Amino acid sequence: MNAVRTVPALTNQAARAIMEAAIAAAEQTDQRFSIAVVDAAGHLNAFARMDGAPHITIQVATDKAYTAAGFGMSTEAWHDFIKNDAPLAMGAPAQIDRIVTFGGGIPITSGGHIIGGVGVCGGHWSHDIKIAEAGLAAIA
Amino acid sequence: MNAVRTVPALTNQAARAIMEAAIAAAEQTDQRFSIAVVDAAGHLNAFARMDGAPHITIQVATDKAYTAAGFGMSTEAWHDFIKNDAPLAMGAPAQIDRIVTFGGGIPITSGGHIIGGVGVCGGHWSHDIKIAEAGLAAIA
Amino acid sequence: MNAVRTVPALTNQAARAIMEAAIAAAEQTDQRFSIAVVDAAGHLNAFARMDGAPHITIQVATDKAYTAAGFGMSTEAWHDFIKNDAPLAMGAPAQIDRIVTFGGGIPITSGGHIIGGVGVCGGHWSHDIKIAEAGLAAIA
Amino acid sequence: MNAVRTVPALTNQAARAIMEAAIAAAEQTDQRFSIAVVDAAGHLNAFARMDGAPHITIQVATDKAYTAAGFGMSTEAWHDFIKNDAPLAMGAPAQIDRIVTFGGGIPITSGGHIIGGVGVCGGHWSHDIKIAEAGLAAIA
Repeated sequence: MNAVRTVPALTNQAARAIMEAAIAAAEQTDQRFSIAVVDAAGHLNAFARMDGAPHITIQVATDKAYTAAGFGMSTEAWHDFIKNDAPLAMGAPAQIDRIVTFGGGIPITSGGHIIGGVGVCGGHWSHDIKIAEAGLAAIA
Repeated sequence: MNAVRTVPALTNQAARAIMEAAIAAAEQTDQRFSIAVVDAAGHLNAFARMDGAPHITIQVATDKAYTAAGFGMSTEAWHDFIKNDAPLAMGAPAQIDRIVTFGGGIPITSGGHIIGGVGVCGGHWSHDIKIAEAGLAAIA
Repeated sequence: MNAVRTVPALTNQAARAIMEAAIAAAEQTDQRFSIAVVDAAGHLNAFARMDGAPHITIQVATDKAYTAAGFGMSTEAWHDFIKNDAPLAMGAPAQIDRIVTFGGGIPITSGGHIIGGVGVCGGHWSHDIKIAEAGLAAIA
Repeated sequence: MNAVRTVPALTNQAARAIMEAAIAAAEQTDQRFSIAVVDAAGHLNAFARMDGAPHITIQVATDKAYTAAGFGMSTEAWHDFIKNDAPLAMGAPAQIDRIVTFGGGIPITSGGHIIGGVGVCGGHWSHDIKIAEAGLAAIA
């Protein structure tokens, strides 16, 4: 029996680099965002709320990161995934705790393993995605 | 007055056998799952999260088992049950705490009595059902 | 920058082996227990509630495992750790969510890393420790 | 009637500077910490969990910051404040949601106004205080 397996994990240094790169990109826009990075377990690893970002963005950014790490799928992909699957379309959005099914949460992977997620909220979800992608570019 | 009645109850040995059989079936696939078995009260009785199953599957598998034991109906059956009943379709999915209305939760019965539920999450709900059924076959 | 680090993780096979060994030891006693194994993040990995174990043992066993993994310290050690530190003695037991500060939760480690925790509840905490230790012997 | 007043507020730039300075100080020790900075409303503004910090430190660091901002008093001061006031000593530690009454949370003030709080968890609370103070030095 193998009692122990070895898995890759996101460093906090990388999580903060993602966050800082997302902030830098956000400062080029006229919108303000919360940025959350979680580990593979969904636990918060790095977070910032830019001045002027509405307070509800704290929750939504964090839950987007949680959802992305929790399924290994961009939150943007959820709508296409469920829209023609009536039971999932009716059930999943309300029933899976902390799920977010619109864009702005992207999984972080390494060698095919989910090692975390980044979540951004502050603009329309199409803008949030751009900021999340700019954050992830820091570790590309 | 009969103060006491006798009810059938799921043994933990059976709950673990269901769980192990579900794991064995899952290992034949390329997906990884969480498997939960609850008793008639909805309380957790046996649980396993396979290596590589996303962490959100813990919650969803457990809630599927809870829902199945809670109404004595497969979670898959909920969608057909409510889709043409507008008040239920609008209300039930979001309002009943811990309800899941897509497949993967199956009640466990004995002599017409609900004695528990098994819930599986890790693939599409149509796959989750197969794993739950393989688990239940252990006590058929 | 190192974006990725490598960490050891408990396998579910080991978690279930710990659980089964704890059950086997418990069956030699006249008490009945719940046994929980969590991963390093505190997420449930394997669980069983033996027939006859009170339902509150589900919660306490799970929280003992969570506490043990959360600090990398046996829950038994907490009392000695805080009893002469007045601020901690007054504060920690009530203020740290899900903490348990009596015996029955033991961390699982590998090469100096916390990889999880086992928690047992069903007898006096001194008995719970014996069952947890018997479980851990399965992967020693 | 003055409908509007002006209040000082912590910038996110300052919150991240506090966090980075705390991390830099922590790296000089052999312990690993979570560091949280909240605003005057108790809402999370900046956060990091260093590699190796136990997962429960996420919760405790955040609640220390929340408590410090919530009363404008160091969490360390709570014990002396309540220990000889029997009703408070019995009640406050368990009854005020998210309160922490041991050291590691320090309010952030400007001109006599509370503008936020920093909370640190990872070592004994006496160590946590040192890291929090090192963080605050960044904006002194």
